[in-house]
Amino acid sequence: MSEPAKPAVSVAILGPGTVGTQVVRLLTEHGDDLAARVGAPIAIAGIYVRDTAKVREGIPASLLTSDAESLIASADVVVELMGGIEPARTLILRALAAGKAVVTANKALLAANGPELFEAADAAGADLYFEAAVAGAIPLVRPVRESLAGDHISRILGIVNGTTNYVLDEMASRGLDYDVALEQAQELGFAEADPTADVEGYDAAAKAAILASLAFHQRVSLDDVYREGISAITSDDVVAARETGQVIKMLAIAERVDGGVTVRVHPALVPLDHPLAGVRGAFNAVFVEADAAGGLMFYGQGAGGLPTASAVLGDIVSVARHRAVGGKGPLESNYAAHDVLPMDAALTRYAVRMSVPDIPGVLSKVAEIFARHNVGIESVRQMAGRGHAGLIIATHRAPEGDLRRTVADLRRTDAVDEVLSILRIEGDQ
Amino acid sequence: MSEPAKPAVSVAILGPGTVGTQVVRLLTEHGDDLAARVGAPIAIAGIYVRDTAKVREGIPASLLTSDAESLIASADVVVELMGGIEPARTLILRALAAGKAVVTANKALLAANGPELFEAADAAGADLYFEAAVAGAIPLVRPVRESLAGDHISRILGIVNGTTNYVLDEMASRGLDYDVALEQAQELGFAEADPTADVEGYDAAAKAAILASLAFHQRVSLDDVYREGISAITSDDVVAARETGQVIKMLAIAERVDGGVTVRVHPALVPLDHPLAGVRGAFNAVFVEADAAGGLMFYGQGAGGLPTASAVLGDIVSVARHRAVGGKGPLESNYAAHDVLPMDAALTRYAVRMSVPDIPGVLSKVAEIFARHNVGIESVRQMAGRGHAGLIIATHRAPEGDLRRTVADLRRTDAVDEVLSILRIEGDQ
Repeated sequence: MSEPAKPAVSVAILGPGTVGTQVVRLLTEHGDDLAARVGAPIAIAGIYVRDTAKVREGIPASLLTSDAESLIASADVVVELMGGIEPARTLILRALAAGKAVVTANKALLAANGPELFEAADAAGADLYFEAAVAGAIPLVRPVRESLAGDHISRILGIVNGTTNYVLDEMASRGLDYDVALEQAQELGFAEADPTADVEGYDAAAKAAILASLAFHQRVSLDDVYREGISAITSDDVVAARETGQVIKMLAIAERVDGGVTVRVHPALVPLDHPLAGVRGAFNAVFVEADAAGGLMFYGQGAGGLPTASAVLGDIVSVARHRAVGGKGPLESNYAAHDVLPMDAALTRYAVRMSVPDIPGVLSKVAEIFARHNVGIESVRQMAGRGHAGLIIATHRAPEGDLRRTVADLRRTDAVDEVLSILRIEGDQ
Repeated sequence: MSEPAKPAVSVAILGPGTVGTQVVRLLTEHGDDLAARVGAPIAIAGIYVRDTAKVREGIPASLLTSDAESLIASADVVVELMGGIEPARTLILRALAAGKAVVTANKALLAANGPELFEAADAAGADLYFEAAVAGAIPLVRPVRESLAGDHISRILGIVNGTTNYVLDEMASRGLDYDVALEQAQELGFAEADPTADVEGYDAAAKAAILASLAFHQRVSLDDVYREGISAITSDDVVAARETGQVIKMLAIAERVDGGVTVRVHPALVPLDHPLAGVRGAFNAVFVEADAAGGLMFYGQGAGGLPTASAVLGDIVSVARHRAVGGKGPLESNYAAHDVLPMDAALTRYAVRMSVPDIPGVLSKVAEIFARHNVGIESVRQMAGRGHAGLIIATHRAPEGDLRRTVADLRRTDAVDEVLSILRIEGDQ
């Protein structure tokens, strides 16, 4: 308390959008607390915006600049909240090369160009922090990188997209059809007018790449991630899930398997007693399975200006503290060299729902097809209809490739009218 | 990868019990991974045990010593897993004074003597890490201290004792009586033969003190914590909770209120749609409410040798890394000077369950008593009986002192036969 005052740590904000506006407000309003935590005051060096005429309320005009380069040169810490690949990538590389600490919330950039950025940070010995890019306000980077540093993570299952969780939750809890639930999500602002990035899993895939990189100390890029969206999920799938004690969740999965890791995003059946099953509405949660720690779950708001700003502020405090009183974050230790395997190598369980003719001998033909590809059957559920029956076969764990070949044969045999849906079953311990 | 090999960081283990045995095993088995994460190999300097003849399987005899002082002197990092106050306290103080980094899982010691230990660490400029003392394997220290460093925590609600959560969960899900559920927990090893420390809330109170210290940047000791156990909870309470869409959970609560903070441990009614309501069996979870981040929950195993060892290992990696490649953890920044207020200042909602004579005018007399003490009534639920009725009054938020005075008057009036239970209602947003 009686130490001599340290010089301020100066922070450049690039991009005063929804998150940036909240970051500027919190930096200003919580100045005294932040100074105590950092060990020195934080000063906003300036705020870069491409068009200084188009700026939100609450951003002080005196701090605005359209000269990013001079702003970066004048600051100790650069906070990138512009989104998109360029010019964010170039500006971050320039900042790192100049030895500036960088905080970013840009998941698209990290998923696409993460390796390049981390190498630049390593080469310059500069901090690169990105908590807000993973799951909004939910702290994941420090728990996974530091708290679990002595453990082995075997799997991460994440609900990392609020839009899809909201849509699936409305379908499950209110019996809405997919289209109706999506429309409602759009009206309430939980989904964009063009919902493709969310419902087709592109947003979740970017986060899956970042989560897999964190969990397995490895550089995983968006191209390594298998991706399926939720637009094919029907009310029948939802009802069938409930009747078997499960719920459908859109999951981002990074998993250690023999010979490497798999990283994938798709809707999946989750048992109702799994902690992820209880994640409602637009909330996010990440379930981490580690050899010694067992199952851990991290839950909270994965999006939104204010929650995301909380994560950005936490990173600003960390890197500003390193400037003010010394220290440095854990280096990116990408010493692991697992192969990222193709989707055919993923090992999981499946529920295959079919319509079959209601005649004797069908089940034995169907079972033979599963056996032909070494896919073990765990349970069979048959529902009578008029002339046709509904059949749900739940399998034991099997490689995705074997299941794919099984389904191809199911589609060819006359013992099956139609394969209605194939859902992976995740989350059993 | 091609850097010159750094000298090993030497670690002294004090107390090879359930946790210590696992820590030694993991340090040995994961040696290569740990070396990569630390930036230098970790070597076990020795293992202190009071009686070297009484040692568990898996502990190498060659590393044992009964000379704690020499062991500490020879090590860079001291890992205290003995439990209890002495000699743990003296040995930790000695290690810190000699500039050693210390990792401890000792919640009793931190709750009783935390301020003394943190001051010693500050004075010596030494790391003192204690993740495993808060909630076993669940990462809380880094998320609360670092990820949320730019935010304001308003409240923490934690299920931090597995025994009481198991007992209450069995009462709720299977309709068992308290005694039966406790006996079953003892048979399954979830409760001790003498369950007092768990069921009366002493264990949870120690964790509440540590959580409050973390959340509010303040030194809170065990004496500041209000404590009530679960032994008075009846099946009637559990049924009444379910009928009103709630479940009873044993909570550790640290909350910012006007004029200070309150820290308390007691059973409470939690709405069924709150994430804490879904925490089953012996699992633990901590729900953190912050101004910007909103609600966050951290879930996992709060006890057990292996999960606790995971948290200890994470701390060992952090402090060893600071030794090997520089850096230092965040300082204990106890700059806040909130008052820890007495329980009468706690503000919450209450469900008061009474037996009342089934005659006209009773409700108006009862309502008048609540009004007399400015306790607002939110809902009234009446169940007819023979000659007597059950009455549950749920209140608006009110100071505990006002509620206490209300209940004293309820116990005096002839409009009430008996006050059957008083449960606080927690977790509304």
